[in-house]
Amino acid sequence: MRIKLIIQYLGTNYSGWQTQAGQDSVQAQLERAVLAVTGKHSCVEGSGRTDAGVHAAALAAHFDADSRIPPENFCLALNAHLPSDIRVLDSCQVDENFHARFSAKRKTYIYNFYVSQISLPLLSSTYAHIKPPFDFTLAQQACKAFVGTHDFKAFMSTGSNKKDTVRTIFDCSLNKNSPPWRGGTECRGGLNGVYTLRITGNGFLYNMVRIIAGTVFEVGAGKIPPEKVADIIAAGNRKQAGQTAPACGLTLESVEY
Amino acid sequence: MRIKLIIQYLGTNYSGWQTQAGQDSVQAQLERAVLAVTGKHSCVEGSGRTDAGVHAAALAAHFDADSRIPPENFCLALNAHLPSDIRVLDSCQVDENFHARFSAKRKTYIYNFYVSQISLPLLSSTYAHIKPPFDFTLAQQACKAFVGTHDFKAFMSTGSNKKDTVRTIFDCSLNKNSPPWRGGTECRGGLNGVYTLRITGNGFLYNMVRIIAGTVFEVGAGKIPPEKVADIIAAGNRKQAGQTAPACGLTLESVEY
Repeated sequence: MRIKLIIQYLGTNYSGWQTQAGQDSVQAQLERAVLAVTGKHSCVEGSGRTDAGVHAAALAAHFDADSRIPPENFCLALNAHLPSDIRVLDSCQVDENFHARFSAKRKTYIYNFYVSQISLPLLSSTYAHIKPPFDFTLAQQACKAFVGTHDFKAFMSTGSNKKDTVRTIFDCSLNKNSPPWRGGTECRGGLNGVYTLRITGNGFLYNMVRIIAGTVFEVGAGKIPPEKVADIIAAGNRKQAGQTAPACGLTLESVEY
Repeated sequence: MRIKLIIQYLGTNYSGWQTQAGQDSVQAQLERAVLAVTGKHSCVEGSGRTDAGVHAAALAAHFDADSRIPPENFCLALNAHLPSDIRVLDSCQVDENFHARFSAKRKTYIYNFYVSQISLPLLSSTYAHIKPPFDFTLAQQACKAFVGTHDFKAFMSTGSNKKDTVRTIFDCSLNKNSPPWRGGTECRGGLNGVYTLRITGNGFLYNMVRIIAGTVFEVGAGKIPPEKVADIIAAGNRKQAGQTAPACGLTLESVEY
């Protein structure tokens, strides 16, 4: 029977989702847990591959279980064999036609970051640090240009061999969050703001969200005018877009089927 | 000259603020950095001692510098010699009568926690995990009883030899935060709520905030009626109060002088 899992993990200590020789991956940890629970090896297929250091709030995955364990019980059984930075939040039986990657219709990523002169240890695990100046209104304007069906070639890291670089972005928005602690704004290293960039699309190219985040940072810093972002998409030149933002700020939020 | 520092740290990897033989402390890291910058040993006196695993958003400290370095420059100079989980957010010269511990008038702690069936890796660094049920309204009612000048003997860990156990709590409130990610509430392990308990007082006994948090958890779980909290304070019996909540949820937010 095919089992669907919902998985949360802190990516800090992993080489990413996908198993790679000699490195510890989230997928390898899950396959080890499945082997421990069922006594048989089974490939755990994820909804997508997250890079080294990238997190997931609710990644979907599936595997085929040759076992008499009730589907709902895999959740607790697998957690007993997983390290504390990976948790299965739910498990259920799905149709054999369900495929975590190929059946996915929409994915949402969030990119969390904060603005301050000095890096802040309390935010280091799931936020990226950027230095002021950062103009929230300008950065918000930049987000609009990404929405729609575009060729995102300029927002793909070189080295990827994807031929079809057209993707549809359903939503791209930037929100200012309430600060996680009070005070300290008078400090030179105090917190100027905490933000979440949220992007929903039918799929993403290699490093696409991190390059979009890096481009939004440059708009916020006044280096790229917000109205130029549409031109950068149209030109399709990686060099015109912003830098690839750090992995630690990126979290796969959800996958819709 | 006397230098005041504002320091943020993630306490996860330290035995606490205070230097202890054979263990790595935040104070020891700072004294090592002062030695590296000035060439002379100087004691770095903090506003209070945080326990192992407890964090600080803006702890105040002072040390006496025999150096020609301008006071404001200590901030960046010390950071160059500190690990990334400890940052000096500001530095300035203060009067020689200033003492980080004895001059402190009010301190504010925050206790962050989340409610879910399964522990959530993305919140593990600065939040404690509690399982449902948790009634927010009941827990909020419990907070009121702590405000005022009381003998907090029931909220001090045994082993402390403090004679004067009377403290004044100026404010104690519980807030529900917006969740750090969307969705997942339909999962068995999904997030039910994220909360911050904030307490301001003129001083705190050993483990006092963590025992107050543990008591608020038991009220939220329906194990202690909120109106009984005043009686628990009055009785002065440690056994009637809740358990000491985990260190990872506690953060010293600010110190007022």
